[in-house]
Amino acid sequence: MDLFAAVALSMLPASRSRVASTFKEIRHQPNLEVNDTLEAVLRACDVPEVKWGEAARVARVRARDALNAARTASIEPLAWDDPRFPALLSCIPDPPPVIWTRGDVGALARPIVAIVGSRAATPYALDVAFRLGQELSIRGVAVASGLARGVDSAAHRGCLTGSAPTLAVLGSGVDRIYPAEHAPLATEISQKGLLVSEFGPGGAPLSEHFPLRNRIISGISLGVVVVEASEKSGSLITARCALEQGRDVMAVPGSVLSGRNRGSHSLLKDGAKVVESAVDILEGLGWPVVAPSRSLSSKLLNSDSLLSRMEVGEVYRLDELMELTGVTGTKLLPRLMELELAGLVTQSGSGFSRRLLT
Amino acid sequence: MDLFAAVALSMLPASRSRVASTFKEIRHQPNLEVNDTLEAVLRACDVPEVKWGEAARVARVRARDALNAARTASIEPLAWDDPRFPALLSCIPDPPPVIWTRGDVGALARPIVAIVGSRAATPYALDVAFRLGQELSIRGVAVASGLARGVDSAAHRGCLTGSAPTLAVLGSGVDRIYPAEHAPLATEISQKGLLVSEFGPGGAPLSEHFPLRNRIISGISLGVVVVEASEKSGSLITARCALEQGRDVMAVPGSVLSGRNRGSHSLLKDGAKVVESAVDILEGLGWPVVAPSRSLSSKLLNSDSLLSRMEVGEVYRLDELMELTGVTGTKLLPRLMELELAGLVTQSGSGFSRRLLT
Repeated sequence: MDLFAAVALSMLPASRSRVASTFKEIRHQPNLEVNDTLEAVLRACDVPEVKWGEAARVARVRARDALNAARTASIEPLAWDDPRFPALLSCIPDPPPVIWTRGDVGALARPIVAIVGSRAATPYALDVAFRLGQELSIRGVAVASGLARGVDSAAHRGCLTGSAPTLAVLGSGVDRIYPAEHAPLATEISQKGLLVSEFGPGGAPLSEHFPLRNRIISGISLGVVVVEASEKSGSLITARCALEQGRDVMAVPGSVLSGRNRGSHSLLKDGAKVVESAVDILEGLGWPVVAPSRSLSSKLLNSDSLLSRMEVGEVYRLDELMELTGVTGTKLLPRLMELELAGLVTQSGSGFSRRLLT
Repeated sequence: MDLFAAVALSMLPASRSRVASTFKEIRHQPNLEVNDTLEAVLRACDVPEVKWGEAARVARVRARDALNAARTASIEPLAWDDPRFPALLSCIPDPPPVIWTRGDVGALARPIVAIVGSRAATPYALDVAFRLGQELSIRGVAVASGLARGVDSAAHRGCLTGSAPTLAVLGSGVDRIYPAEHAPLATEISQKGLLVSEFGPGGAPLSEHFPLRNRIISGISLGVVVVEASEKSGSLITARCALEQGRDVMAVPGSVLSGRNRGSHSLLKDGAKVVESAVDILEGLGWPVVAPSRSLSSKLLNSDSLLSRMEVGEVYRLDELMELTGVTGTKLLPRLMELELAGLVTQSGSGFSRRLLT
């Protein structure tokens, strides 16, 4: 399996989510040839056998074009088996075989929280989304969202004022910014964070892409915070994806009079956590919020099974730590965050390293 | 035991809540003389024995004065063993031996929901409190509150626009309205609902009375809805009383930016139910909200054990139904409400009666 095969897969004329879940089942088989993979997926997706040859041929041509276009446009594709492909995304039921990125790929190795919500947002929602984005960023937590008007872009902008990167997951190619008015914001994000899409270079912002895009927003995140969602808000799709993926769902309360928060409040009624500030988000994810005491640090230092496997001076990627410890990414990231807050681990774009304590 | 003894008890120079809980323990002893009761309570309240005689004498004088004052001022005292004394209030850990009322005493036999909140309320909170009061009243549910500025009075006013009575529980005598600007509202409530207090005629609105008053607001109610409470709001005392009394606590979400809802949101974080409308309140109390189908009515008609004990044409007080069925008031009221919504039972000031169905 190589990048080309992963890209070709994502060019097949079949349901993206079906292709993804089928491929997830077979992706670890050894010596899988491109043609075998394409055929297995076409079979599982109920494409008539008589069309397989032509479908595979077209997918290969498109894959070649897409990879060429990416090279000229500084777009970096990450196939599912690339060590930089986010471990959390890899765990979802229908992970994309490849994601296309522009910006700092290291942002994907951060602990990420998604903030999503209304496009036609009230000033209240914009204010809250900006503040949450900023508060998380100041604490080193990256913020993912969908670059949409309203809450999404406010959350990105808030995050950009802090120290952590922000990740915009698009329903179009990362070189085709939608809505067009967010082109400057997208440029800033590609400089200080990352644009991400499962749609190749030049991919159009088709309406059916956005629900698919939502599973990637929650898929790369530890939890999803909904800010102002009405009953039919697309953010509720992201919340549902998060639940299916086993991620935490949280919601910000707001006015009960306008109907604009009916979706958020219905999430709260169903058990989503109440978010008033970034502290609620961190607590909701089980992270320690108060600066840990010296004694906690020394306790972790002596007894933590993760820390004891990390050599000072070495940088470990998340997947390396997963292999080293046999623990899933979903469980490792909060522990790494805890160690970082305790001052015992530091992270860079390339991974995590143990701090030399004096 | 008679009314005079109950009033004298509430005039003793000891903690009101202590007197109440002590008296609750002994109140069902047969042939309890006034002096025995007073002495037993004085003993339990750690009043030195040398002071008992004088304390009892003063309490008797004050009781006589209070009962005389009540007669001239159309104030009706209800002792704990009066059949019109609310059954729900009788169940709390520290029920007052007597409550003083002005207005329609039948209001106490209704299903009651308390709405409490901020005195310095925002227009949002006033609007929500009024609407909830109105929506509950239209559905035949009485609204209790504290006649305070802000949320309390908005809830009373909303209820007055509907068909159910509203009950104002005061921290002063029912003939001494506080705040003074609410005198016209109190007059209207005494005409269409009920003023209630455990403080006798002329009782001053002392600051220590208000936390005590809060336990009566929740004590007569099936549930408490908090609208806009900051971290130090007195409404949180009412919410805590409600929890201690086993009543439902609910809260209306609002802005997370001002800090004015921090108390309400902390209730939500602790599991209080989210209230957006009266429907949420009724559902939270386990009442059917959608008009029940014909089949539900006939199912209840044939099988309901409460209904089968009620003769058409007879009016039953709540305590009579409690005796008839052996079921507590807390459990009977929701069932009666359900039967009423199904069109099988109707209620008047004097009690509940079974409807003749054609």
